[in-house]
Amino acid sequence: MKIDGKHFRSIWREPSGEVRIIDQRWLPHELRIVPLNTRKDFADAIRDMWVRGAPLIGATAAYGVAVQMAADPSDTSLDETYEVLHETRPTAINLKWALDEMNKVLKPLAPQLRAEAAFARAAEICDEDVETNRQIGLHGLEIIREIAAKKGGGRVNVLTHCNAGWPATVDWGTATSPVYHAVEDGIDIHVFVDETRPRNQGAQLTSWELISHGVSHDLIVDNAGGHLMQHGEIDLVIVGTDRTTARGDVCNKIGTYLKALAAKANGVPFYVALPSPTIDWTVVDGVKEIPIEERTGEEVTHVQGRDPEGKIISVQISPDGTPARNPAFDVTPAELVTGLITERGVSPATAEGLAAMFPEFAVQ
Amino acid sequence: MKIDGKHFRSIWREPSGEVRIIDQRWLPHELRIVPLNTRKDFADAIRDMWVRGAPLIGATAAYGVAVQMAADPSDTSLDETYEVLHETRPTAINLKWALDEMNKVLKPLAPQLRAEAAFARAAEICDEDVETNRQIGLHGLEIIREIAAKKGGGRVNVLTHCNAGWPATVDWGTATSPVYHAVEDGIDIHVFVDETRPRNQGAQLTSWELISHGVSHDLIVDNAGGHLMQHGEIDLVIVGTDRTTARGDVCNKIGTYLKALAAKANGVPFYVALPSPTIDWTVVDGVKEIPIEERTGEEVTHVQGRDPEGKIISVQISPDGTPARNPAFDVTPAELVTGLITERGVSPATAEGLAAMFPEFAVQ
Repeated sequence: MKIDGKHFRSIWREPSGEVRIIDQRWLPHELRIVPLNTRKDFADAIRDMWVRGAPLIGATAAYGVAVQMAADPSDTSLDETYEVLHETRPTAINLKWALDEMNKVLKPLAPQLRAEAAFARAAEICDEDVETNRQIGLHGLEIIREIAAKKGGGRVNVLTHCNAGWPATVDWGTATSPVYHAVEDGIDIHVFVDETRPRNQGAQLTSWELISHGVSHDLIVDNAGGHLMQHGEIDLVIVGTDRTTARGDVCNKIGTYLKALAAKANGVPFYVALPSPTIDWTVVDGVKEIPIEERTGEEVTHVQGRDPEGKIISVQISPDGTPARNPAFDVTPAELVTGLITERGVSPATAEGLAAMFPEFAVQ
Repeated sequence: MKIDGKHFRSIWREPSGEVRIIDQRWLPHELRIVPLNTRKDFADAIRDMWVRGAPLIGATAAYGVAVQMAADPSDTSLDETYEVLHETRPTAINLKWALDEMNKVLKPLAPQLRAEAAFARAAEICDEDVETNRQIGLHGLEIIREIAAKKGGGRVNVLTHCNAGWPATVDWGTATSPVYHAVEDGIDIHVFVDETRPRNQGAQLTSWELISHGVSHDLIVDNAGGHLMQHGEIDLVIVGTDRTTARGDVCNKIGTYLKALAAKANGVPFYVALPSPTIDWTVVDGVKEIPIEERTGEEVTHVQGRDPEGKIISVQISPDGTPARNPAFDVTPAELVTGLITERGVSPATAEGLAAMFPEFAVQ
């Protein structure tokens, strides 16, 4: 999407052949574009979260393999690269998927053919992600168009939680893709952005991408969404997901469930945007079966931001020694979900609906 | 309640006659106790929020009148003091109530009798507040005892939102009073403290008073309560209220409504602790009738805390120019409220229940 009028992806190759990324650690306060020139650069970028978001991590790993193949296309180098990049974030499902894809293409090839093939496959992985998210956006656009029509052209108000935006993907984002498509379609659309404590991905990333692209929005605290729905200020909710079960239970950033409850109570449609690889066909009951990561309490007792001198620092908001609990995700039961916006279309959040849309994956 | 083993009220008179308060602007990072020696001191303390919370504001104003009567007990001085103190926070209902109470006692008296009578009435106002909150605590304790019995002595887990604790009152607090009584009763009790963005009263004040008194607790982000309820980790919710309607709709800090929805969905009892003057008998439908204050967006885009050097500063969490919305309160409809814990007992959140408990106030 655009930053101050200029189109960007979150990872790209320059005409010179150099791979560049936006170093997201400095967002929203600074736009730093950095080249990744060696395998070590790529490993650092993934491990230390210069890039984040499952699709972007996969794409970055693919280019990491390609850059290493240009330096040393030997079998040893290929195997080592798989190990080095995989261990940067071993639980990231897209990372392993992308590395396996690269191996599938490169292993059978003679070393001198590998670099070119690797760059080609990495570019394809990026383009596939962009196309998936574009399709999600087009299906979501239909939902927004219907609401806009019902409102007679009045402003359509979307609530979103966390960041499922383009910086988490190669372009478009998942939850934001319908919004960007609505903007392109000329629909009057406004986004309420949950700040998304504890890590404030809404305040730091979603606000940043919307302000950069020029999309109307308001930042709100996570506490405010229920009140806004109660007063008719939200027309629909669109969020992303880290994992969705075979029956449509949605695991996403902590706090999503509270917004889904408020949406249900106030008759506001609640949609989840997801590329189909996010569906875990082996899991049915999300509340019972999905283990929820508990992160350090320091994320709760401290908040990161820019101090009056412009330095990025962390301030402590509670007394010394305050104990904290920090579950990172929650599960929204399928019955609270109006629909799942996938690259193939909008599915009801039911086992039957998902199985009908993805018959090749559904567990019989 | 206690701070590191020593009993404190939020306002008190020293044996020397000096009135002292805890200057709450420095909490939780520093305990500053300051004397208020002149009418100007009292006006500053109320206006600039060295003290906050309706009952404490009233008590502080009462002592402000007394201190001024000791300096100048004339009619002019009494009238001026009413004006000076009233305009510090003109919408605070308890402030006007306390000033009217003082006038009622002092106006009929000869000037030379006023100082002593004023100190006596101010002390009474404080004691009355303490007694009201003690009664709320005793009625709330019954609820906690029942839950403790059902759990066979297992830990009782309470969720609270914002700060309705003793620093908002003279002592005990409202929502915290049942908790302190449970602690005194030997019940194994644990409090989950919502940080309560945007102003973080939970992180700054509730955490502070619980850690100071030695009550087991965990700070959590506002997003986490739904997940904890879904997994059986919360036995009951107790919150305070700024205004409750004649049928039991509860206006409280933004985000309370989301917790009430989660409590209902998960079968967790949701209680509101309130002294009866908080009931607005002239209002019935809280969602429709109570205007919600919208505060500055800077509270959303910035967070206050202690920097690594120990200085209290404000950091910006979103990009420059991010627009924000900041509704300060929300309304929880009565049907989500299990009961209202008042100084007379626990009332159902219904017009009939409240009218039966407070027949002298109910509008016929």
